[in-house]
Amino acid sequence: MSFIELSCQRFVDELGSKAPVPGGGGASAMVGALAAALGSMVCNLTIGKKAYRDVEEEMKKVLEHTSALQNEILLLVDRDAEDFKPLAAAYGLKAETPEEKENKARVMEEALKTASGVPLKIVELAHASLEYLEVCADKGSKLAVSDAGVGAAFAKAAILGGKLNVMINANMMKDRPFAEQLMAKTNRLVEDGCGRADRVYEKVVKRLSA
Amino acid sequence: MSFIELSCQRFVDELGSKAPVPGGGGASAMVGALAAALGSMVCNLTIGKKAYRDVEEEMKKVLEHTSALQNEILLLVDRDAEDFKPLAAAYGLKAETPEEKENKARVMEEALKTASGVPLKIVELAHASLEYLEVCADKGSKLAVSDAGVGAAFAKAAILGGKLNVMINANMMKDRPFAEQLMAKTNRLVEDGCGRADRVYEKVVKRLSA
Repeated sequence: MSFIELSCQRFVDELGSKAPVPGGGGASAMVGALAAALGSMVCNLTIGKKAYRDVEEEMKKVLEHTSALQNEILLLVDRDAEDFKPLAAAYGLKAETPEEKENKARVMEEALKTASGVPLKIVELAHASLEYLEVCADKGSKLAVSDAGVGAAFAKAAILGGKLNVMINANMMKDRPFAEQLMAKTNRLVEDGCGRADRVYEKVVKRLSA
Repeated sequence: MSFIELSCQRFVDELGSKAPVPGGGGASAMVGALAAALGSMVCNLTIGKKAYRDVEEEMKKVLEHTSALQNEILLLVDRDAEDFKPLAAAYGLKAETPEEKENKARVMEEALKTASGVPLKIVELAHASLEYLEVCADKGSKLAVSDAGVGAAFAKAAILGGKLNVMINANMMKDRPFAEQLMAKTNRLVEDGCGRADRVYEKVVKRLSA
């Protein structure tokens, strides 16, 4: 089943239900895809406009990146749901004998490592999209620049949403060095990404006020 | 045409295109609806659980509010697109004679006031959803509490996205007292909402770390 083929209305309803997927991870991927798409929109409304001929080539390159990112992040909605399956299966394993306990712990650890991959990827890709949203904020058509600011706010939300979903997996891992390295990597991206998102948003507010 | 009936994939593609709608306003409504739905999810994963029997009645009431909000905010995706039509028509009016100029200015002013209504409503409803997301963060099942934090980050993004879309309309209004009052009202909600969103997010990080 593909969640990105659901209508927006159905997706919101499914998210609100007690079904475990889509959850905060898949929703963060959706918001990350919307962020990158807003960058694409700014590019598409700038390219071909006489007043912005000087930045036309640059905006075309930015559009290649934001288009690729919007597709790549969106696919993570479904991958997040896929990765939940082995985790749900691990939870369901019997753990009565010592052998069963050991096996369950091993399978669970593996599933947690797998399940942390998609939210980390969401953080990485939403972080990457901010580089292009910043170009959109600086050089995109003034008629569309607000969309670059909205995109920056969304990318930050996707990053923060992804972080919480890395965290819930990392918290349960027995392999503490792995978990701590994972959180350190995530937190570096979160800090840098949130700083850039705020800066891009403020740039847009300034350009709109000028 | 209803944008919320499009698949998530199509919605992201349409957002990224050069078509003026959906734009940052409609996308902010989508993110606001996802925020409220995450609150509903936390309620649905808390209600009926023995360990959370003490908060069951409270969570049922919260769920009524978050369910209503997720539907109400989602409808704004399409209303935002509807309100763009009179604005686009006003832009297209001839303004050669003094009479035409005066008429165009009058029609434009009316369309700007109309178009600022939906983004203000997005800010108001995303702000309102934070009250319920905070209850979810404080009292919801620990197994779902990360979703309350993701919801808070999304509500903040919807508020910041809505603000930029109020701003682009307010900036063009000739009726400055109206425009300034509108921005003052918006900014109060933004300040209060962003503060609450950050607080809710931090509460979730703390509960996950405990």
